[in-house]
Amino acid sequence: MKTIRTVQAMAAWSAAHHREGVTIGLVPTMGALHAGHRALIRVARLSCDAVVVSLFVNPAQFGPKEDFARYPRKPKADATLCRKEGVDVLFAPHVDEIYPDGFQTTVSVPRLARRWEGEQRPGHFDGVATVVTKLLTLVRPAAAFFGQKDFQQAALITRLAEDLNLGARVIVYPTVREADGLALSSRNVFLTPVQRRAAPALFQALKAGRAAILAGGRSGAAIQQVMRKVVGKESLAGIDYLAVCDPDTLEPLKHIRDCAVLLGAIRIGRIRLIDNLLVKC
Amino acid sequence: MKTIRTVQAMAAWSAAHHREGVTIGLVPTMGALHAGHRALIRVARLSCDAVVVSLFVNPAQFGPKEDFARYPRKPKADATLCRKEGVDVLFAPHVDEIYPDGFQTTVSVPRLARRWEGEQRPGHFDGVATVVTKLLTLVRPAAAFFGQKDFQQAALITRLAEDLNLGARVIVYPTVREADGLALSSRNVFLTPVQRRAAPALFQALKAGRAAILAGGRSGAAIQQVMRKVVGKESLAGIDYLAVCDPDTLEPLKHIRDCAVLLGAIRIGRIRLIDNLLVKC
Repeated sequence: MKTIRTVQAMAAWSAAHHREGVTIGLVPTMGALHAGHRALIRVARLSCDAVVVSLFVNPAQFGPKEDFARYPRKPKADATLCRKEGVDVLFAPHVDEIYPDGFQTTVSVPRLARRWEGEQRPGHFDGVATVVTKLLTLVRPAAAFFGQKDFQQAALITRLAEDLNLGARVIVYPTVREADGLALSSRNVFLTPVQRRAAPALFQALKAGRAAILAGGRSGAAIQQVMRKVVGKESLAGIDYLAVCDPDTLEPLKHIRDCAVLLGAIRIGRIRLIDNLLVKC
Repeated sequence: MKTIRTVQAMAAWSAAHHREGVTIGLVPTMGALHAGHRALIRVARLSCDAVVVSLFVNPAQFGPKEDFARYPRKPKADATLCRKEGVDVLFAPHVDEIYPDGFQTTVSVPRLARRWEGEQRPGHFDGVATVVTKLLTLVRPAAAFFGQKDFQQAALITRLAEDLNLGARVIVYPTVREADGLALSSRNVFLTPVQRRAAPALFQALKAGRAAILAGGRSGAAIQQVMRKVVGKESLAGIDYLAVCDPDTLEPLKHIRDCAVLLGAIRIGRIRLIDNLLVKC
């Protein structure tokens, strides 16, 4: 496995492999890799000739009061995991490589970024859209792989890759979960044992919402109530939002027709957890 | 010469030529080609293996009260000029190819877009930055060629190509002028004969500003006054701005050190004219 630290070397590697007709799969990450990332790497390996994992804790997508400084970092373990999984390139640039002096360009996907995480975290999705655009133009993958756990992010990146003609298919892979349903996330390490026992409340709420839809419920407001009730039972959890949305536009659905995405975000202490379920009825 | 109308065909042409190691030069235009565009095409031919000219009147860079509908269009003459100049591909997409249903991604270069044309034409540079990003990701040229007449645009595109790692050198070619100094522009056809005789006032002002700097003038305000005086003599001309700026940041200069760019925009009737001069002292 090759570790690349500069944008110039990354672009050169990509150009050389394009000339040879090698298809590249990209798995963009912020490191602190877990089994969810591993699943993305494995599906990338199955569908592309060469796999690049990027590891970059992107300051632009953290708000001033958010956890950029204490976001978990474990570069050695990440490199070991990538090597074991047969990754070809670990792209781990320094922040000055990605945002050099004078940097000012911003990519926005305004309609998809407006609600939910975008509302809770102002500027977050501009930071995501900008860094992902840069990664896609640098690595020029045939496909880029994202976890469904960040549903809004995946929707936004799918849109931006098409809008900016970035030439990469965006593959959204199902969320990997703990045995009790908690979606894997690098931030889960911050949960105390007591908080950890409360954390599955979010997935339980989403499952209750799904069950209510599959039992014939079609009112967005009613399904939302079902979900709120489940989280409400967990005294450690506060609700940021629990919503029933159109999976394409992410706008709230009053009436569910053929499908919906249930989006949720809760707080347990200082830790935010997000999750979602796609429901077809 | 091949005429391409779809983004899919454009991307496929580019991919095929990349695989063969052909370097591509791109000249982005809004059509109504004149000798300024021809100079860009010729320098592209000299420095690249294959030349793509894009012809797209980009609605996103016109304000609601601007001249999108009446912007000059002469596709036949444009195709003839391109064929004569040995252009390989004329990329002339329909607006729905560039902005399909659901399109919403926007590219911004906020600091360079803030003043001058950006202030006079809100949203203009977001439209420019977005369409140029799309053209660069679609065509993937080794170099893209822009006229110096649109100095702020050229500065902004140079920045965005670097910021988004688009892999294209941005080449800014000197302004081509009429015998009396008027910078060539597709919009010059709108000038009545009387207005046309007034139009060189802008270039005369810039030249007077340059002469004052070369004669030792170093105060931005004083040079600005010199330029205002020249335009002020032309009763048909109204000043939008006349400014002495840092060529990199486009911020106004109080004191000129080693170089400056003189930026100007005037109105003659309903027609806006812009021009600039780069001065090294």
